[in-house]
Amino acid sequence: MEVAKVDHHRTSLQGIPEVILARGKRTEDVARVAMAMYKRSKRFLITKASAEVYEGLGTGEAVFHERSGIIVAGGMGGRKGRVLVVSAGTSDIPVAEEAALTASFLGSRVETLYDVGVAGLHRLLGNREEIGLARCIIVVAGMEGALPSVVGGITDKPVIAVPTSVGYGASLGGFAALLAMLNSCVPGIAVMNIDNGFGAGCLAHKINSMVR
Amino acid sequence: MEVAKVDHHRTSLQGIPEVILARGKRTEDVARVAMAMYKRSKRFLITKASAEVYEGLGTGEAVFHERSGIIVAGGMGGRKGRVLVVSAGTSDIPVAEEAALTASFLGSRVETLYDVGVAGLHRLLGNREEIGLARCIIVVAGMEGALPSVVGGITDKPVIAVPTSVGYGASLGGFAALLAMLNSCVPGIAVMNIDNGFGAGCLAHKINSMVR
Amino acid sequence: MEVAKVDHHRTSLQGIPEVILARGKRTEDVARVAMAMYKRSKRFLITKASAEVYEGLGTGEAVFHERSGIIVAGGMGGRKGRVLVVSAGTSDIPVAEEAALTASFLGSRVETLYDVGVAGLHRLLGNREEIGLARCIIVVAGMEGALPSVVGGITDKPVIAVPTSVGYGASLGGFAALLAMLNSCVPGIAVMNIDNGFGAGCLAHKINSMVR
Amino acid sequence: MEVAKVDHHRTSLQGIPEVILARGKRTEDVARVAMAMYKRSKRFLITKASAEVYEGLGTGEAVFHERSGIIVAGGMGGRKGRVLVVSAGTSDIPVAEEAALTASFLGSRVETLYDVGVAGLHRLLGNREEIGLARCIIVVAGMEGALPSVVGGITDKPVIAVPTSVGYGASLGGFAALLAMLNSCVPGIAVMNIDNGFGAGCLAHKINSMVR
Amino acid sequence: MEVAKVDHHRTSLQGIPEVILARGKRTEDVARVAMAMYKRSKRFLITKASAEVYEGLGTGEAVFHERSGIIVAGGMGGRKGRVLVVSAGTSDIPVAEEAALTASFLGSRVETLYDVGVAGLHRLLGNREEIGLARCIIVVAGMEGALPSVVGGITDKPVIAVPTSVGYGASLGGFAALLAMLNSCVPGIAVMNIDNGFGAGCLAHKINSMVR
Amino acid sequence: MEVAKVDHHRTSLQGIPEVILARGKRTEDVARVAMAMYKRSKRFLITKASAEVYEGLGTGEAVFHERSGIIVAGGMGGRKGRVLVVSAGTSDIPVAEEAALTASFLGSRVETLYDVGVAGLHRLLGNREEIGLARCIIVVAGMEGALPSVVGGITDKPVIAVPTSVGYGASLGGFAALLAMLNSCVPGIAVMNIDNGFGAGCLAHKINSMVR
Amino acid sequence: MEVAKVDHHRTSLQGIPEVILARGKRTEDVARVAMAMYKRSKRFLITKASAEVYEGLGTGEAVFHERSGIIVAGGMGGRKGRVLVVSAGTSDIPVAEEAALTASFLGSRVETLYDVGVAGLHRLLGNREEIGLARCIIVVAGMEGALPSVVGGITDKPVIAVPTSVGYGASLGGFAALLAMLNSCVPGIAVMNIDNGFGAGCLAHKINSMVR
Amino acid sequence: MEVAKVDHHRTSLQGIPEVILARGKRTEDVARVAMAMYKRSKRFLITKASAEVYEGLGTGEAVFHERSGIIVAGGMGGRKGRVLVVSAGTSDIPVAEEAALTASFLGSRVETLYDVGVAGLHRLLGNREEIGLARCIIVVAGMEGALPSVVGGITDKPVIAVPTSVGYGASLGGFAALLAMLNSCVPGIAVMNIDNGFGAGCLAHKINSMVR
Repeated sequence: MEVAKVDHHRTSLQGIPEVILARGKRTEDVARVAMAMYKRSKRFLITKASAEVYEGLGTGEAVFHERSGIIVAGGMGGRKGRVLVVSAGTSDIPVAEEAALTASFLGSRVETLYDVGVAGLHRLLGNREEIGLARCIIVVAGMEGALPSVVGGITDKPVIAVPTSVGYGASLGGFAALLAMLNSCVPGIAVMNIDNGFGAGCLAHKINSMVR
Repeated sequence: MEVAKVDHHRTSLQGIPEVILARGKRTEDVARVAMAMYKRSKRFLITKASAEVYEGLGTGEAVFHERSGIIVAGGMGGRKGRVLVVSAGTSDIPVAEEAALTASFLGSRVETLYDVGVAGLHRLLGNREEIGLARCIIVVAGMEGALPSVVGGITDKPVIAVPTSVGYGASLGGFAALLAMLNSCVPGIAVMNIDNGFGAGCLAHKINSMVR
Repeated sequence: MEVAKVDHHRTSLQGIPEVILARGKRTEDVARVAMAMYKRSKRFLITKASAEVYEGLGTGEAVFHERSGIIVAGGMGGRKGRVLVVSAGTSDIPVAEEAALTASFLGSRVETLYDVGVAGLHRLLGNREEIGLARCIIVVAGMEGALPSVVGGITDKPVIAVPTSVGYGASLGGFAALLAMLNSCVPGIAVMNIDNGFGAGCLAHKINSMVR
Repeated sequence: MEVAKVDHHRTSLQGIPEVILARGKRTEDVARVAMAMYKRSKRFLITKASAEVYEGLGTGEAVFHERSGIIVAGGMGGRKGRVLVVSAGTSDIPVAEEAALTASFLGSRVETLYDVGVAGLHRLLGNREEIGLARCIIVVAGMEGALPSVVGGITDKPVIAVPTSVGYGASLGGFAALLAMLNSCVPGIAVMNIDNGFGAGCLAHKINSMVR
Repeated sequence: MEVAKVDHHRTSLQGIPEVILARGKRTEDVARVAMAMYKRSKRFLITKASAEVYEGLGTGEAVFHERSGIIVAGGMGGRKGRVLVVSAGTSDIPVAEEAALTASFLGSRVETLYDVGVAGLHRLLGNREEIGLARCIIVVAGMEGALPSVVGGITDKPVIAVPTSVGYGASLGGFAALLAMLNSCVPGIAVMNIDNGFGAGCLAHKINSMVR
Repeated sequence: MEVAKVDHHRTSLQGIPEVILARGKRTEDVARVAMAMYKRSKRFLITKASAEVYEGLGTGEAVFHERSGIIVAGGMGGRKGRVLVVSAGTSDIPVAEEAALTASFLGSRVETLYDVGVAGLHRLLGNREEIGLARCIIVVAGMEGALPSVVGGITDKPVIAVPTSVGYGASLGGFAALLAMLNSCVPGIAVMNIDNGFGAGCLAHKINSMVR
Repeated sequence: MEVAKVDHHRTSLQGIPEVILARGKRTEDVARVAMAMYKRSKRFLITKASAEVYEGLGTGEAVFHERSGIIVAGGMGGRKGRVLVVSAGTSDIPVAEEAALTASFLGSRVETLYDVGVAGLHRLLGNREEIGLARCIIVVAGMEGALPSVVGGITDKPVIAVPTSVGYGASLGGFAALLAMLNSCVPGIAVMNIDNGFGAGCLAHKINSMVR
Repeated sequence: MEVAKVDHHRTSLQGIPEVILARGKRTEDVARVAMAMYKRSKRFLITKASAEVYEGLGTGEAVFHERSGIIVAGGMGGRKGRVLVVSAGTSDIPVAEEAALTASFLGSRVETLYDVGVAGLHRLLGNREEIGLARCIIVVAGMEGALPSVVGGITDKPVIAVPTSVGYGASLGGFAALLAMLNSCVPGIAVMNIDNGFGAGCLAHKINSMVR
């Protein structure tokens, strides 16, 4: 059956090993692939997972981060370089956590700075030193999605922007924030899909790893 | 002929007298209405006007502000209170100017603060005192439309946000900025249509006029 | 933990104190922040709240307005000036109520005029005197969103338009009403996000407070 | 050659004879078809036509209505019943004229009431008698497209709503007005495509003709 | 309390009496208004109603049409003229039924012709005589929304097109059908909002009633 | 220089040789590639070409089909099987011609049936025999895009639908027709991009060639 | 009652017999039509069906393919020619299965090649021989929808592209994949509606059947 | 006058010095700012510039790259690391060139690989070695925007995707390609706004510069 094959060749080509996206897959398929990974390397990361997936796993070593829907087994706590994850509002934290856990799982040292929305600029500006220490900064924001532009305006580090689906009405499920980030007046901001904290964690780790 | 009738009753009801929107109207119609206003009150304001409209007017007293497409005759330089017009990028100035000229024509004292985009936050923060002096602040921005949120975060005055069509690709002709402003995390920002500097000037003057 | 910090500095900067948006936040986080506010100032307002949030609070002094999802504790019944909240259809009342409760909580005297849709113009026109007494008018409407234009045409007061998600099919979740309000032929109408009664209440109170 | 065939069978089936839509067709094709009609019945109506099309015709009996892009030959001035065409702003008149000329060409008596926008309600209400005399009312409006709801609220006659592309920014080329009309709170308003005055004229004439 | 007021003046102005839209309203409010109508005139029509609304009514004389969500009390079976309701697919029948019940409630004689989709043209063409007998034809279709054009091509009667939300993917909740109907190559088709069978029934009855 | 390389390997892989899309390319680049093809095989097809491109070519053997923007050199008049191209309105002919010329250039025998819109069904039904002779039918239509469904309903042959940008307002540049075709109630209709007559010609030829 | 009529004439015209789309229909209606088909020809195919529909059937010979929502009775395992169904990700398999079961039911021999996403190109390229054996290839993909272009680039067979609703955020419910497929740089790819595996199976079988 | 101020502080903060976006600015303003930069540092880069801007400059040392609208003065030919710019079709080259010139101006060594569209995969795969040598890869593509996924599938380097407005109809001015890139199944691709080669060049240089 095609589904359960673990394609080791592919993941090693792209430098992102042992990761499964649970959304849209059957619980049994996710569990089987995860356990195959675990057998081989004692570690895996599952994104967009539910409690049901967690319960379907055959190992007690996995940890379920409920808020972000991340299940992780083996070796968190990366120590390489420094990735900073900044988020705007309380409701953006699940996506920020997905980004942080991903980068950490891949091997990066990760720091977080939550709840520094554009409306409370003093909190962001009070953390300039923290921003200066990072090699790469992930900025997570919903609603008007303005935070990446503001962060990008006070640093020369690569900025990765993640729009979230936080908001209502004209936020169009995160599209307003996505468009804002794509149109940032700060040149060179890297934009991810809505709620794609995982992608941001992957890119941040790649960039962070360039410094040997 | 319906077109040329000047509807004095309507405009006085709404408190916005002697104004003509030129776009979509024939030059001769605009000119006729303008001259009727001029005859009655020695003043008029024409928005979204071209040089052709300006040349079609029968008075040498009108001034044509080419960048913003405003033609004005009689009584600029309002002295009432203080409206501040802030704009993000150089390309947003025409819309900012439309807002400023409108509020001034209606009777408000207007100050401007141009080119203070989100990417250069230090310029905005360096003008906090100026912001504090205003009764009402118009913020004009295209691209990601983040500036109203930032301004709204450092003042308790009413903020009027005007998205502009400045940008390309995913700016969707100003829609990205419009959506951002509607989703601002700062509560109570008043949003206008794309490029509607005139509307912002009207509202600002109304608010500014409340303090007697 | 970032989430529970009450950022007094921010809210006082913007002039909108002691308010929490419940949507997208965990019940325990909302409750903790609310109680911290209550401790400090004996009052708070929670918007977009569910019965679950209400039950999670540790005070018997809060009142739950179910229809609009507002929980309020301390000091309603503002007495300052006069804000009028007008709404079009029965289904628009929850958003109108959110606006009215917000402005009242912030200190404004609030009057309401419900169910005066465009199709029944005589009811609106029969209340012209009421409209004339207000310093600022909030107009709430779904479907075609025409009411703010009609109200704006018979008053020179600032009008704040709130589109609602009432409607179906081509109402696009309130987008039709939002677009209509942004394109109003009455100059200077302040537009809010869809269903954002809270924002309208904030702006109305700011404007109402300008007259000392 | 397919293009030049005059399909008499089709047009008589639908009850709309001798009409050509010029847009998107070559001038020579339009002229040939028009002259074939003229030969047969001494009359034709061409919509969305340019001056170039007018000059390409081989008859001096056609009249070119430049503002609405209508060319008409033979028998205007219908006398049957009464169709009223109401329009909101000056810029909406070309589409209103297209509707009026179409209904008149088909045989209806047509009256017009222009420039009665929602912002100036007193003008509309002052013409209630005129509205009462019509069998069917065409309402043409751009921008927020609110006029059909207002007219529909004061009459029990069939109302045909035509959105126009008048507006800018969030008017989305007339889509805002179109959506508003589709969502009217007045039941049973017939909506046409943006700028489709011709279609409105056809339907109005059909309805007007039902009373024998 | 505003909600429960029965606005008799409004409904009589528009010629559509005794109708309530249940969607978005509280069950108790709907019931109260319905019973007030029933008391006055022994009849009412409720649209978009659920079984819960039906159970909340205080009369045993109302009939609940579950498929279309219509509750009706008093006087169905109109006898005036002839309105034909045509629908495309089986899934479109609820909306067709809403249109048919509405026109019948208002007083029109109604015939129906269901399941005559464009893909089975022979069924439609086999009913040409039926189409010829009607004074006005309502055409209900989802998916590609082509049926109104086809019907409109074989009759000279007024055609009212109702798009439905039947379909998936690129049907965009009925928007594809709506756009198709607005762009019909048959001139003068009257278009309603998505799933708005009620509106179609109202307009059809108005047109049908013109022949005395 | 990359641009001028003729990638013979690619085109033979896909079975569509010697074709150039002119749009978005510089005239000199198009000409150089065309002449290289001509040298090798004495034939080429250029789509979406302007007169300027035609004049820039170094051969007198190419023919310019102005209406469809096709330049063709060598071997038209395919004789294999039978592809039928049906189009709805006069304005759709350029795209239909692009499809017909492409299939013919590739080797298919092509017949055309133009101006058989849905509103004139009798013309289409009168050509059933012609439809029966084809192996594959291309149907080109703008506006409501209903024709492919109607044709698909009377044949069991593969139908290829091409929406055109013919229309205005709510046609959204052909998007209305595209959506209609994607939602056809006839199963298995192959849909192309808006105005993509070339793609339709390619697919039709591939299908037509399956019968040896 | 219209609903239950089995329209044999229509289905035989289009060459797709004995198929029912369950979505949007009442269980009892689906069952009745299915049993009528079964009585006549001992076979039927139901698409987009739920377990409830399956249980409502009066035959034990039907098989329910839960993942794809297909119920099939009688004669699977077509033997004609060869159709290849390729899919990108695990979550796309339900739609791929719908396509495969449909083509098989209609009589085609079907092979499948699942989980060969663009990110793992080596798997696709390793199956070139398999691709070469097919007469027609169905390619099913969600997210960025790139697979049809890649497959189309390495074969000269007709390619049928089916976008799926797999994805989140900016995938817009499958619209991103749909747009990508419509814009493929490979000429002549046949595009289906989102999740329309059934349509793809029908078209593939028609094309596959052309070779006698 | 605000416009002409050169904000050295801002640009140095973000690490992108001496760059001007010409679009939407007056020629004289662009020239003045450029010459101020030239005076200070003997270099500048102007993007989205026309020939008119080039002629308005007061230096003979600037070079105008017409295809990409780039004007550059001083110090091209960066030597640091290696950035690879890959593009899909001939029409995408202007945007690719904008990216390449930007990264080179900032100091990176840049290689290019043009015309390797998804439909001609062999060309891309034949350049794997070239891809392996880069530290960071910019991938530029219009139409279906599939190339970044394919490139991302064969490398573990950071990939920066730039959608272009190349295409027509359902390409929606580049939106189709943008959506495809945001939904890539390869994790961590950095997406830019449509046609934003400049942003890609900036980000690529930042990433390339991380390796000291």
